[in-house]
Amino acid sequence: MTEPTENNCALIALDWGTSSLRCYRFDAHGGVAERRGHPWGIMNLPVVDGAAANPVLAFRSALEAACGDWMAAAPDAPLIAAGMVGSKQGWREAPYLTVPLAPDRIGRKLLRIETGLSRPLYIVPGLLQVSTLPNVMRGEETQVIGALQQWRDDELLIGLPGTHSKWVRVTHGRIQHFDTFMTGEVYGALSAHTILGRTMHKPDAPDDAAFMRGARVAQSAEGQAGVLSNIFSCRTLGLTGELEPQAQPDYLSGLLIGHEIAALKGMASHHPQRIGLIGDPALCRRYQLALELYGMGPVSVAEQATEAGLWTLAQHADLVG
Amino acid sequence: MTEPTENNCALIALDWGTSSLRCYRFDAHGGVAERRGHPWGIMNLPVVDGAAANPVLAFRSALEAACGDWMAAAPDAPLIAAGMVGSKQGWREAPYLTVPLAPDRIGRKLLRIETGLSRPLYIVPGLLQVSTLPNVMRGEETQVIGALQQWRDDELLIGLPGTHSKWVRVTHGRIQHFDTFMTGEVYGALSAHTILGRTMHKPDAPDDAAFMRGARVAQSAEGQAGVLSNIFSCRTLGLTGELEPQAQPDYLSGLLIGHEIAALKGMASHHPQRIGLIGDPALCRRYQLALELYGMGPVSVAEQATEAGLWTLAQHADLVG
Repeated sequence: MTEPTENNCALIALDWGTSSLRCYRFDAHGGVAERRGHPWGIMNLPVVDGAAANPVLAFRSALEAACGDWMAAAPDAPLIAAGMVGSKQGWREAPYLTVPLAPDRIGRKLLRIETGLSRPLYIVPGLLQVSTLPNVMRGEETQVIGALQQWRDDELLIGLPGTHSKWVRVTHGRIQHFDTFMTGEVYGALSAHTILGRTMHKPDAPDDAAFMRGARVAQSAEGQAGVLSNIFSCRTLGLTGELEPQAQPDYLSGLLIGHEIAALKGMASHHPQRIGLIGDPALCRRYQLALELYGMGPVSVAEQATEAGLWTLAQHADLVG
Repeated sequence: MTEPTENNCALIALDWGTSSLRCYRFDAHGGVAERRGHPWGIMNLPVVDGAAANPVLAFRSALEAACGDWMAAAPDAPLIAAGMVGSKQGWREAPYLTVPLAPDRIGRKLLRIETGLSRPLYIVPGLLQVSTLPNVMRGEETQVIGALQQWRDDELLIGLPGTHSKWVRVTHGRIQHFDTFMTGEVYGALSAHTILGRTMHKPDAPDDAAFMRGARVAQSAEGQAGVLSNIFSCRTLGLTGELEPQAQPDYLSGLLIGHEIAALKGMASHHPQRIGLIGDPALCRRYQLALELYGMGPVSVAEQATEAGLWTLAQHADLVG
């Protein structure tokens, strides 16, 4: 890490989500010169006088605390942000763009807002899929764009596992379609707030065998009963002594992820050229196991997709050369 | 209601579940002479000195407070109880009986325990289905037995909607198979502990149109994505202005129940002679709507199945004439 100067601070980029604010300082070649993380997600901003009446004050204050020194050292470096900062609960709502679309269109539609600091902030809009059951994303579009710098296949299926897993189909460089699965959040709610959690003990280390046992359920005869029924087995296998309390968390995780992958496979008309994953490495590893179990391998895992996406969007927006 | 006497107190019966204790005083003809309800479920017993070291004290105390006057007035009336009182967390564990079985076998396998009061308590065992994914019930077997006094069809599918919905297949008077769906508890966890709840407003009156809209999802093309994906539409339809906050609770309820019924239908090899429901009337009405939507009507609703089941079990156990 070097001190920020005009030379190595060509772009200040933010991944500003619900629960965290991640900051990247880029050099003129698109390399990350420095990165920082703060717990100041849009639902968890630092307390600031007057923010109750004017929430903008809290956003401004968090931005200044996080990147004020970078901004002072590089007065000309533009500011870009992706994620929930552009939602209705964010700094300002950046209207969704609708899919299908070519990713470079997103960079040309950034929302410019005045920050009250030394420069404007360009907010990346999220994506909306208009449908009987609509779908939305904010932040993941930036990671997809980053991954597309690495993967140039004609037909891609990109998964972004997490609280709300996204699965994005990219065909000939266009974002065609995406689906959302609330797998991570459902796992959390079931573990913490239903009877299933009562008999669970968190294991010391990830239990892949329990995970795979759960992941297989969706493709078994019993899987036909669906996820609302299958999850009860986490308790009943415990009652019958067939599943230790320490194995139950990973079994449940596998059961849910298995159902996600089984549904995904059921919807796919054919196998894409590449299946890629973006996200937390431990979680990606789990998804990789489940995808291979369902015959959906091999799987590539993207590196630093967020950073690459923010830089690429800034290029498309002509903020950087 | 009449005062309890030897003549009109032939049986004291308890439906003792997780969150409540319901008491029935039966006359010699199996009619309910009096009923009472207390919030003293096995997880919510009245506080009693010494119960931390000896939980039996809390059960005994609750029983005496609930039915002590009945017991005093009718020294010979036997005591029977069904429900979670026979679970590991209950007064004493009554080992499961395995299905398939003929319902009258259950009455011959009651667990007799000493209460420390004036008479023993006979606890109804729950049922276990041994399988790759086992299933259990405690309490519902008693309701099924009660309903079987009303329905004598050769092939029955009996639904008990609730926190954990049960679906029980009865063929030629034998309990053959059952499934559990955690629909009610999942609904509660999603509404109270995920992002879906944040935009929901409880409506003043049940919104059947929203419920049916949700119930249709599982049979639509989008339903293929499965319940983990479909539930996200509760949020996205709100974001796009297509689903009012007041409509979201019933939409989500319909969506989950629709997936339950769709899975149930997918597992059925053919239509049973009768589909029956036991439970809360408002919830049974909802399930009836969803069953008819999925071509699984007409539906019968049982009356006073718990009472009829407790009396029938006491007969099978030769506790009453």
